[in-house]
Amino acid sequence: VEMWVMDNGGFCDDNYQSGSSDDELVDISEVTVDFSEDVPPLDRDYSAGKTPYNGKILMNCLMDLLDDTVPGIGTYEDFNTIDWVREKSKDRDRHREIANKSKQSTVALLFSISDAFSGWLLMLLIGLMSGALAGGIDIAAHWMTDLKEGVCLNGFWFNHEHCCWASNETTFQERDKCPQWKSWAELMVGVSEGPGLYVVNYFMYVCWALLFAFLAVILVRAFAPYACGSGIPEIKTILSGFIIRGYLGKWTLIIKTITLVLAVSSGLSLGKEGPLVHVACCCANILCHFFTKYRRNEAKKREVLSAASAVGVSVAFGAPIGGVLFSLEEVSYYFPLKTLWRSFFAALVAAFTLRSINPFGNSRLVLFYVEFHTPWHLLELIPFVLLGIFGGLWGAFFIRANIAWCRLRKNTSLGHYPVLEVVVVTLLTALLAFPIEYTKMSSSELISELFNDCGLLDSSKLCGYTSNSGSTSGSVNATAANGLGARLAGPGLYTAMWQLALALVLKMVFTVVTFGMKVPSGLFIPSMAVGAIAGRLLGVCMEQLAIRHHERDIFRGWCSPGADCITPGLYAMVGAAACLGGVTRMTVSLVVIMFELTGGLEYIVPLMAAAMTSKWVADALGRESIYEAHIRLNGYPFLEAKEEFRHKTLATDVMRPRRGDPPVSVLTESGMTVEEVERLIADTTYSGFPVVISQQSPRLVGFVLRRDLVISLENARRHQEGVVSMSPILFTECDPPMSPSAPPAVKLRSILDLSPFTVTVHTAMEIVVDIFRKLGLRQCLVIQNGRLLGIITKKDILKHMAQMANRDPDSILFN
Amino acid sequence: VEMWVMDNGGFCDDNYQSGSSDDELVDISEVTVDFSEDVPPLDRDYSAGKTPYNGKILMNCLMDLLDDTVPGIGTYEDFNTIDWVREKSKDRDRHREIANKSKQSTVALLFSISDAFSGWLLMLLIGLMSGALAGGIDIAAHWMTDLKEGVCLNGFWFNHEHCCWASNETTFQERDKCPQWKSWAELMVGVSEGPGLYVVNYFMYVCWALLFAFLAVILVRAFAPYACGSGIPEIKTILSGFIIRGYLGKWTLIIKTITLVLAVSSGLSLGKEGPLVHVACCCANILCHFFTKYRRNEAKKREVLSAASAVGVSVAFGAPIGGVLFSLEEVSYYFPLKTLWRSFFAALVAAFTLRSINPFGNSRLVLFYVEFHTPWHLLELIPFVLLGIFGGLWGAFFIRANIAWCRLRKNTSLGHYPVLEVVVVTLLTALLAFPIEYTKMSSSELISELFNDCGLLDSSKLCGYTSNSGSTSGSVNATAANGLGARLAGPGLYTAMWQLALALVLKMVFTVVTFGMKVPSGLFIPSMAVGAIAGRLLGVCMEQLAIRHHERDIFRGWCSPGADCITPGLYAMVGAAACLGGVTRMTVSLVVIMFELTGGLEYIVPLMAAAMTSKWVADALGRESIYEAHIRLNGYPFLEAKEEFRHKTLATDVMRPRRGDPPVSVLTESGMTVEEVERLIADTTYSGFPVVISQQSPRLVGFVLRRDLVISLENARRHQEGVVSMSPILFTECDPPMSPSAPPAVKLRSILDLSPFTVTVHTAMEIVVDIFRKLGLRQCLVIQNGRLLGIITKKDILKHMAQMANRDPDSILFN
Repeated sequence: VEMWVMDNGGFCDDNYQSGSSDDELVDISEVTVDFSEDVPPLDRDYSAGKTPYNGKILMNCLMDLLDDTVPGIGTYEDFNTIDWVREKSKDRDRHREIANKSKQSTVALLFSISDAFSGWLLMLLIGLMSGALAGGIDIAAHWMTDLKEGVCLNGFWFNHEHCCWASNETTFQERDKCPQWKSWAELMVGVSEGPGLYVVNYFMYVCWALLFAFLAVILVRAFAPYACGSGIPEIKTILSGFIIRGYLGKWTLIIKTITLVLAVSSGLSLGKEGPLVHVACCCANILCHFFTKYRRNEAKKREVLSAASAVGVSVAFGAPIGGVLFSLEEVSYYFPLKTLWRSFFAALVAAFTLRSINPFGNSRLVLFYVEFHTPWHLLELIPFVLLGIFGGLWGAFFIRANIAWCRLRKNTSLGHYPVLEVVVVTLLTALLAFPIEYTKMSSSELISELFNDCGLLDSSKLCGYTSNSGSTSGSVNATAANGLGARLAGPGLYTAMWQLALALVLKMVFTVVTFGMKVPSGLFIPSMAVGAIAGRLLGVCMEQLAIRHHERDIFRGWCSPGADCITPGLYAMVGAAACLGGVTRMTVSLVVIMFELTGGLEYIVPLMAAAMTSKWVADALGRESIYEAHIRLNGYPFLEAKEEFRHKTLATDVMRPRRGDPPVSVLTESGMTVEEVERLIADTTYSGFPVVISQQSPRLVGFVLRRDLVISLENARRHQEGVVSMSPILFTECDPPMSPSAPPAVKLRSILDLSPFTVTVHTAMEIVVDIFRKLGLRQCLVIQNGRLLGIITKKDILKHMAQMANRDPDSILFN
Repeated sequence: VEMWVMDNGGFCDDNYQSGSSDDELVDISEVTVDFSEDVPPLDRDYSAGKTPYNGKILMNCLMDLLDDTVPGIGTYEDFNTIDWVREKSKDRDRHREIANKSKQSTVALLFSISDAFSGWLLMLLIGLMSGALAGGIDIAAHWMTDLKEGVCLNGFWFNHEHCCWASNETTFQERDKCPQWKSWAELMVGVSEGPGLYVVNYFMYVCWALLFAFLAVILVRAFAPYACGSGIPEIKTILSGFIIRGYLGKWTLIIKTITLVLAVSSGLSLGKEGPLVHVACCCANILCHFFTKYRRNEAKKREVLSAASAVGVSVAFGAPIGGVLFSLEEVSYYFPLKTLWRSFFAALVAAFTLRSINPFGNSRLVLFYVEFHTPWHLLELIPFVLLGIFGGLWGAFFIRANIAWCRLRKNTSLGHYPVLEVVVVTLLTALLAFPIEYTKMSSSELISELFNDCGLLDSSKLCGYTSNSGSTSGSVNATAANGLGARLAGPGLYTAMWQLALALVLKMVFTVVTFGMKVPSGLFIPSMAVGAIAGRLLGVCMEQLAIRHHERDIFRGWCSPGADCITPGLYAMVGAAACLGGVTRMTVSLVVIMFELTGGLEYIVPLMAAAMTSKWVADALGRESIYEAHIRLNGYPFLEAKEEFRHKTLATDVMRPRRGDPPVSVLTESGMTVEEVERLIADTTYSGFPVVISQQSPRLVGFVLRRDLVISLENARRHQEGVVSMSPILFTECDPPMSPSAPPAVKLRSILDLSPFTVTVHTAMEIVVDIFRKLGLRQCLVIQNGRLLGIITKKDILKHMAQMANRDPDSILFN
């Protein structure tokens, strides 16, 4: 039942088997039954005759449980949900065992200490590895992006900036033009100006872009289909307890790292921030293999993966605290406080590793370092809230458009030509991007430039104010010469505005089409770019309005003539936060990431106002974030922890069997034969069976998993002597009297979960959903007055929730 | 059973009744049974005859449930634990009702919108109120602290600093000596130097201190006994679901605010940070009264209180993010993501309110603003880790010593004279503190000075380097004149060092004795002061070592002669973090608070190294933080969420009745009379009773709370006609046939919880503990094969955990 069929829009499996493999044996029975060698149970009286724990019988019965366990029991199949309770119990058992042994010998004590610190060591390694990989990706992407334009004569491995560092002929104005750096036209045709130069450069730009994108998609298709996309929806699903083997494997890591560089360099409208989270999680998963504690326990592994997603954001933005909060708020499912502290450690290690690699060449930790000098005025909250509304609208529009496009890809023949799709989109992007300055540069450069406040010596067109020259590029800002201050817009700025407006439209369209293609693609940077452009446009408008109307009452308070009273860069930042918030519905983590970029609490209020508005507007138009929308699109079994279940249904409405269906398939404690059980297994697809006292008196004894049952029966047939089809199967504690001629019984109490979770038929579904979420259950049995009536699985709950959501689309206001 | 007896070391109740009072009626029955007017249940077939929901019977049976509810049902008594599941269900019902009504009329729609935004409004109000109160407390405490020394002639309401601001005669060196500010000796005796001045000032200092402390303790004793201490242990307990009426009431708020100022001004070794959390929570609780949504729901109120504790730390340190993380890590029990975002909002509002009040007169948000200019060297991690070890040792020592002292107070006659105790401690503190410069100043000034890096013009003794003058005070730092650089220690610094060492010992002793007295007292500042002194001492030692041995290999790498390579202020900060961490066991929030003080990611690594070492060392010597130790000391029913339960016991070992005891007291579905039930209630003290089908077949039907049962029976006796002692009590869905002459039945199905939580006897206690923590249960029933065997309450679990902890003190290594 729990087996989840991936639809064909998902990916195919690859050969790398991560996670617990079949030869790692863990005995599920130990969890609840075996208490023979541990702390003596409190107050339990072994000699009291009237309890089931009667001394002699107990000893006899325990013999079975101490037998060797059957290989495979306690592991999971691919595309199955893990049982958090079982995994955590397994871990506690491990702990207890180590703690007990450590009292016996010094070696064991040392082992136990090393085991206790292995978590920290693992975090350190994840931080170092992810930081190093992120640094490598940054450097490679920077170099390859510049390769589209030209090459450095000092050495082809220098990027444009590094190439010109060495040059001592460059002034500030000519910073980007040094003789060592040759564009392709200069190198190939020899022309250094004129239309020829432009055409050749254009052609080369498009060719490189196509080459990079083609390589990326081919590599993904050939070696690691899981490497496509941002990976965050899948990681959310995995963290919630789903198993997708190979999704965090070494092939995915290698291919994702390489293709991420290629995809970013190709100039497609995508970012590397989301995929970096995937890369960090791959590192974590691979490193887990070296630590038994984490390799063998799916729950512990997920704690590590939660920390790894914090690491991913930490290296993506240089924001360790923001990364931890991102993991807490957006990605993680189970996030104990211990993990918080470890995540923070790992995120810091990664951030400092990245800084010591210094990929941006400026010793800065953060991706977009900004420093504003003008405080903001209370009235500016109005445009900030407007940006928030824009961000919310963009978020809602983007999610709908992107999901519609992905659905189209899935349902039409478009989905059969992923390589062609990537090539065509790249071709269009490159063709349209090259003529416009702001789409030609990489998105992160663009954001950087938009965030930047115009200094005195800025050569950017965005700072083309009419101070002294007013020429298109390189107009230098001087102090207030004319009466209206230095910040009156000149022709350079007007050109920039038009180009930005065009860039905005292009970015919006291409982002919708790009996200979801079969290349690694992140959303953070394109969303931020859209917001930053919109913000900068609004900021410049506000600035010009304030300068031209500085005598009005509204501006007189804070805008004296000649002074800089409005910072367009701040508007860009606020806009970026708003758009990112609208798309991802991040809140605290978003504001903290932005805060870490600037380092001043000063600007938290504008950011917060925008993020809050954006979230409200976007939520009013559609509840799901882009990640949740993709989770639903791909049909992953993800039980959203944020949304409360608000419908008034009862467990009886959700449980199987439905009214009118035959009663639930159960096993009886005794009295069934091997054949009967095998037939039941063959006839049904349920992932587990309740065990009851008898068919007439369906009172619950326990629950047995299908997988465990199948493996145990096969094992018994193969290895236990004398087992035939007519052999009885016993889940009882002690053997019932049997005739000596009868075939030997198959004793399966060791695979029986004696403490299955139960609810009553009257339990409200909201409580059932809460239990499933908080305890991480796979299934739960429904009883009434002690009689077993049905079963509720995670899948039943998800189906029911989807059904209720369709039936009664509640307003978002009531969150 | 759940009624918790507060021991006499706790406080007595006061008259203010916070929380839901008796006239607020909520019907518990609605939660699980009433589905008559809501979304039609899915797939439920009312006409199918074989289900218990048979159409006609259902309608008959529902009539009872739609009766008016009995006043008092669904509320809690004082010192009881709330049922989180029930509270959350109540809130969901409220939501559904509003959502349904909002579809019917515009007024209802507007109401529903205002209801949705009331949470944000409440947060805004809490932020404003707490920020304003904190600002007032800061200003008042500052003024009164200075009042101990003297008075301002320009107006007695000026503190020393403000008084001298107006003066234009002051230079940097004479900053503290302006003619308008008169010490008491100058004012009263007229002397301006000599031993007379000293003696009179000494006397006045002690008198004021005694007066303030006496007033504080008298006010606390007379008006609000709950106002004493830091309040954080109690708030932790309240947030975990306990009810202490009046603890967050308006009297507590008023008295705590006033006495906090008095206590801080008296010069006792205590801080105002912890109590500010209590103050903010009081604000929140009082403001909750204006919002029905929060007034009537204990779970929702606790969400608001979680946010309020973030607000408290935010205003205490000017660190909103740190505050939110503090609430998440240290205080809160149930912290959904929605609360995270709202807490952040409230914390920001509070921080900005405080900043606009500007109590420190420097436009800074943070309590201790620091800016360091020298980067730290990797080798410095060794002294930082040493500071961490010191912090851990201090934390462990402090907790043990303080708890021992509190136990002494509780068990001996010392506890009977709280006023005398406060007066004596204040007298001793004042007498010993006055002669030493660093204990005479307030702790926060001291920390500020210790954190500060020596600038060129610093007049502090701590900067008494042998540059040019070498005089005791006011030695001005110049650039490297002698070969060894400007930082060679002079006599001023040596004096300062000795005084600091003395101050360290005094602070340590007095902090142990002070925390737990009957005045408001926080721990953060004293702990930080201890750490800062130790750190500064070590920092100066390191600095002198580096300067004197700058030719050694070890220093050559980073300490060129004449350069400042070691910042003693950073050591002070690291030491403060380490000591605070050792005492409170905060981790991420501690580092983030410290980060927000400096604003640079640069120094996170030293802070983290120290905090981590400190936590490990302290944990190895004793697991509990000071708050947890006080919770245990006072016997509050707090189920710690951080520690995992690691013992291998089963539900059967913990459940009542124990083996050999009589079976559990149950009610039967039908067949009991009013008299029998009343006798059962009178004979037992259990907080609730399971309802079973019959004594012979103890199969569980539901659970009824003692309080609900008592109220319902009283109500029936009083208001229902014909009810006599022999009237039958019915929990059944439908009335059994009865003779017309029989007395009328009391129908109580409406107070019956039809979906009590159940576990089996085989369920491992680790899982039971997990369920209790995560779902916030009060009790849980234990069944085996459908038969009710026993009951486990929160108190049973706490007792069992204490028992197991005593039996097997596990090593901390295995966390």
